[in-house]
Parts: sequence; C-alpha cells; structure tokens
Amino acid sequence: MNFLGIDDEDFIRGDVPMTKQEIRILTLAKAHVGTEAVVIDIGAGTGSISIEAARLAPDGHVYSIERTAAGIALIQANAEKFGVTNLTPVHSEAPAGLEQIPVCDAVIIGGSGRQLHEILDVVSVKLRTGGRIVLNCITIQTLASCLAYMRQHVAQFSYEAVQVQVNRLEAVGPYDMAKAINPIYIVTCIKKNA
Amino acid sequence: MNFLGIDDEDFIRGDVPMTKQEIRILTLAKAHVGTEAVVIDIGAGTGSISIEAARLAPDGHVYSIERTAAGIALIQANAEKFGVTNLTPVHSEAPAGLEQIPVCDAVIIGGSGRQLHEILDVVSVKLRTGGRIVLNCITIQTLASCLAYMRQHVAQFSYEAVQVQVNRLEAVGPYDMAKAINPIYIVTCIKKNA
Amino acid sequence: MNFLGIDDEDFIRGDVPMTKQEIRILTLAKAHVGTEAVVIDIGAGTGSISIEAARLAPDGHVYSIERTAAGIALIQANAEKFGVTNLTPVHSEAPAGLEQIPVCDAVIIGGSGRQLHEILDVVSVKLRTGGRIVLNCITIQTLASCLAYMRQHVAQFSYEAVQVQVNRLEAVGPYDMAKAINPIYIVTCIKKNA
Amino acid sequence: MNFLGIDDEDFIRGDVPMTKQEIRILTLAKAHVGTEAVVIDIGAGTGSISIEAARLAPDGHVYSIERTAAGIALIQANAEKFGVTNLTPVHSEAPAGLEQIPVCDAVIIGGSGRQLHEILDVVSVKLRTGGRIVLNCITIQTLASCLAYMRQHVAQFSYEAVQVQVNRLEAVGPYDMAKAINPIYIVTCIKKNA
Repeated sequence: MNFLGIDDEDFIRGDVPMTKQEIRILTLAKAHVGTEAVVIDIGAGTGSISIEAARLAPDGHVYSIERTAAGIALIQANAEKFGVTNLTPVHSEAPAGLEQIPVCDAVIIGGSGRQLHEILDVVSVKLRTGGRIVLNCITIQTLASCLAYMRQHVAQFSYEAVQVQVNRLEAVGPYDMAKAINPIYIVTCIKKNA
Repeated sequence: MNFLGIDDEDFIRGDVPMTKQEIRILTLAKAHVGTEAVVIDIGAGTGSISIEAARLAPDGHVYSIERTAAGIALIQANAEKFGVTNLTPVHSEAPAGLEQIPVCDAVIIGGSGRQLHEILDVVSVKLRTGGRIVLNCITIQTLASCLAYMRQHVAQFSYEAVQVQVNRLEAVGPYDMAKAINPIYIVTCIKKNA
Repeated sequence: MNFLGIDDEDFIRGDVPMTKQEIRILTLAKAHVGTEAVVIDIGAGTGSISIEAARLAPDGHVYSIERTAAGIALIQANAEKFGVTNLTPVHSEAPAGLEQIPVCDAVIIGGSGRQLHEILDVVSVKLRTGGRIVLNCITIQTLASCLAYMRQHVAQFSYEAVQVQVNRLEAVGPYDMAKAINPIYIVTCIKKNA
Repeated sequence: MNFLGIDDEDFIRGDVPMTKQEIRILTLAKAHVGTEAVVIDIGAGTGSISIEAARLAPDGHVYSIERTAAGIALIQANAEKFGVTNLTPVHSEAPAGLEQIPVCDAVIIGGSGRQLHEILDVVSVKLRTGGRIVLNCITIQTLASCLAYMRQHVAQFSYEAVQVQVNRLEAVGPYDMAKAINPIYIVTCIKKNA
C-alpha cells in the first residue's frame, strides 16, 4: 500500500536541494502517473520525485536523469532504502541521455539547466498523446521560457500553471509560528491529439 | 487506474463551495488513504474529497457527513457520475451521525460548524492508532481551536500544520496573470500509540 | 498632515481596476517620493497612485499618463476630491506624451501596454541620477521583460524585486476568513551615477 | 526629507530579529503617524520601527518599550546613527513602563510576550479617539488573541487585518529566484468616538 507523500526527512539527502513534500505531491498528482506509467524525471536531484513516481507505477518504469555524480549516488541510495527496483538512474545532462528512452506517459522536469527548449523538443516526441509534462520552476526566467514554449506550440500542447506557496507552522513554546518555504511555479502541459 | 487530482470542473457543483483541486490533493495525500481505508469526511459539501477518497480506497469505505440537503444531493450525483459505490452519504450535523460508523483509518474535516472540539472528541475514539485526522481550516478561529485541542491532547496526537496558497495563472492575450485563490491551513493529526 | 495610505474606498473608481492600498503604499515608499519630487505615473488608471504621490510631494509635481478617457476623467475627479493641484493628467499612450515632461525624480509604471522597453528607454534619460523607477507587474511576461531590460542595462541601473501577496481577513459571524488578493511583483530600479 | 522605507541593511542589528522593510512600511502607513504624533512602540527590538516613526513625527515623540538590554542598546545605537532625538527608550516589559507615557496617537505592538490583553487594556486608555493600534502578529495564537480582544471591545474599536507575504527575488547568475520571507499578520485597530 504505497501512499503518495513520503516525509522529507525520510529521504537520504546530503547537500543536494530537494523538492519539498507538498510540491512533490502536487507535481506527481498533476503528472497523472498510473500504475503502468513510463516516467522520465529530468534533473532528478536526490531522486525524491523519482522514488514517489516509481511507487505509483509498480508496473511501469522511471528514468531519472541527473547530471551530478552526487545526485546519482543519492538516487541509488534512496531507491535501495525504499525498495524501488523499477527505476534507472541515467548520469547525463539532458537532453543528452534521453535518446534510448522509449515512448513515455509523463515527464517531470525539476531542473533543466539552460537547455529547457531543447529538452522540451526531445520529450515532446517521446510523450504519448494525452501524456503530461510537469515542470517545477523556481526562477522567473525558467517559468517565462516554459510559458513562451507552450504559447509557440499551442497546436501540440495545452497548459495550466499555478504558483504554490507553503508556510509551515513551527511550535515554539505555546505558539505556532509560520516559517515560509520558497514558492514554486508548477506548469502542467498536456499533449493534444495530433 | 484512478489518479488523485480530478479537475474542479469535472465535479457537479451547484452553489456549494468546493475545496480546490490542489488543496484536495494535499489533504488526501496527508490523510494516507490506503486501498482498504475506512474514511470519514465531515462537512463533505459537494463530496469532492469523498469521491477522491473512495477512488483511493476501492476496498474500503467512505462516510460523507453533510448537514445540508443540497450537499447530500450533490454527493449522490457526484458518486453516480464517477461510478463510486463504496460511499455512504449521512445527512446529519456532526458529531451527530457519527455513532454508527465503525473504527476508521482517516478522518477529513472540511467543515465543523461550531462543534470542532466535540467532533474531535468523538472521532479520536473511532480512529485507529496511527490513523490521521486532516482538517482544512479557512478561518483563524477554527485553526486556533484545532491547535489548542492538539496542544491539550499531546499524549494522544502529534500534529503538523501548513498554510497553502495557490495562485493560478490565467492566459489573457499574450500574458499570464496570477489569480489568487484563498489560502487554507491544513492540519494533520496523527494518533499515537496508547 | 498627509498620511500615505488612503483607503481604497475613498477613491472614486468606476470600473477601472485600481492598485490595492498595500501595494500603493509599498510602491510609493520604494519610489522615495520626497516633498519636492517630480514624479511620472505611467498607466495611471484611477489616479490612486498619482494622488498619493502628489500628497507626498506638495512642492513637486506629478504627471499622470493614461491612455483611456475614462481613466483621465477619474484622475481629474480624484484630484478634485482630494484637493490635489500639483498634478497634470496627460491623455496619451506612453511613451507618447512623455516628450514635454522635464527631468524627474521618480517614475512609477503601473501599466505599460506592450511598450515596456520603449518606455524604459525614454524615462531612463529623464530620470536624475539616484532616481527610481518602480514597476508593478501583474503578468509574468511583463516581469520577465523588466528583469531582462535591467540585466541588459546593469551599467545604468541596480534593481531589487519582490512579490507581495496580501490576504485580507473578512469577519463572517464569529470568524475571520482570509480573502486573497492577486499577488503583484514590485521591481525597484535605481539609476546609478554615470 | 525623510522617506519611509529605510533599507534593512542600514540598521545596526546584532542578533535581535528585525521587522523586514516591507512590513515596517505597511505597519507605519497603517498607523497614520503624523508629524506631531506621539507613538508608543511596544517590543521595539532593534528600534527599526521606532526610528522610522520618529522620522515621520519630527514634532512628536516616540517611546520605545523593550524588555531586553541588548534591544535597548541597539535602539540607542540606531537613534544615534540616524540622528533621531525625539525618541525615549524604556527598558521594561509592557505593560510595565507604560504608566508615565501621556496620551498618544498611535501604538505599534511588535512583541507582546504573553501580556497582550493587559497591554491592550492599558493602551486603550492612553490612545486618543481616532488613534490607531497596529499589531504585527507572527504567531497564530497572538493573532487569535488580538482578534478575540477586538471582538470583545467592538464598542471601542473597529479593526481590519491582513496577512502579508513577501518573496524577494535573488539574482543567481542569469536567473531571478524567489526567496520567501515569513508571512506576518498586521491588525489595525481604530479607537471609536466614545
């Protein structure tokens, strides 16, 4: 019985920045990852999104693309910790490394370096009709670049975008005090029928 | 293949206020609804949370407590629309109506009227050890009341609380413009071992 | 004794959208409008920002550029209501209409149509060293365009940018319930010494 | 020519937490501090709010109540740095220390320890009709307590409350990335005619 929503503390992390729990949950829900889904996770970092995707898709497969060796080691460590076997780490900087991956149902982009349009060009082809690309954008430029791409490819994709801000209440003596978490834009792109 | 995260427009709504998609997703993820879960949804409104819970728990059951007849009708209409049969609407104002419900795994409280502490007293008994109560609070007073209860019952419950604010980007000509959605506090309470 | 922070309801409004009080206060504070300041307000709308600027600069002058006749009429009505005489409405679509305006201390841009870079080119010349341009951006594209300009003109300007989100508590019976206001980005650009 | 809105970095700070610039600006604007105002700043911390209030009220006076010696030293250091002489630090834990202060126009409460209702009882008497109390609440309990007080004293006070959340964009290479600041509730209470 696999719940979506592993606690942040349960992942092995090191110093690699990690998507926070609430953003991870929303990203995976918006990606519509089914039990047989083939998922590509680009800029996989610690693998927290990949692990949750792999648990949602026990009869599918997750490809975790990550350019740093530290990230790849953490993905492997987390896969082992959570007993996830339907996950392949790919040590590469996207779009390199995407060549051999087959048709997929969902693409999650947590980090794109400066290659966002190139990555979108490649994954657009691999994504099945009705499949979804979900991007987490932490910078204005990445968000603007993603919106510009979707507006240029309106025949291929529809999109929706939300900004999500979470404040966590921390108990300090008799008080609950809000601690802000950096806000994130989540863009969900759906591939239209040809 | 049931995804968590039905679009808001897909529910039959009428004039009853409805929890927005992102809040629904986070609420259900934080409730850890498993495939065999027994779930109580208090203040069920349109039934949007109940429907998603019922889909996550195909071998479990959802009890939807709602005090308005309009709400009960919408819950039934939505259950029919989504083909959900493991759901029982209960036309009652909680805590009334909770008596016959058995031991449960999760309680979701979207609306509590002014009876929050009475409701928490009753569901605390029905909730299994390790089970979760998740509250959506839209007022400061309900949030403060919930936090006060959890602080008084620290031997029984641990809790975490977040405020979630979502801004939806709307396309207006060549622009994407943020439309704010009212923020919500989500309090997750976990029943400790006795 | 002129306070910064006129209540929204005190302005004559019609159907023209108006900057909300908190954003108006922050925009004017970040513009460093002194008592003798010459201020240009571009996309002045109802004139709410112009009126507050004129009150902060009793020995200065405010030029309110607005392309709609409805806006110009509201600016005049509000100037009359608040007894402001150091304000000149200019019925024009910027950058047109800026030609005759002299050297200025502050430029506030609430609406730029699609001419943002052209407007910035013109006002950059008029702005005194140390003077400030403050932009209110409600779309991602305007924000990205403003940031791109400032990054291209790093020899001329330093900038800081914040997103501000305000939720207003509304009393509903015994409860206070948050009503969200759409978030805004405020970009403050300071002209460097040549 | 005194602008409202000193930069955070310009204050001498030590380790004492400081209200952030945007919150300081809104707090002072909502307090309607005029040139002759008598202002009480309770829980003055570094004195950042007191200093800005003193500059807005050159013909008035500011009393800065602070319980820590470290805070009192910072208030004095900042008063000296900004050449502010119409400010009296009071080393005390409110409501103690308020006895000798005369009728006042505005009260700003940044920190109230656990004595909020006692403090409000005392300052309610000192505040002139039409005067304003502005509270910055960083905890849910302080906010709820303040709202409860105002609801019990509806014959004496009207109030409005907003939550303000600021995200600061930080330039990181070619990107602007949002860094969240903890949100704050600002409650503005206006003393009614008797």
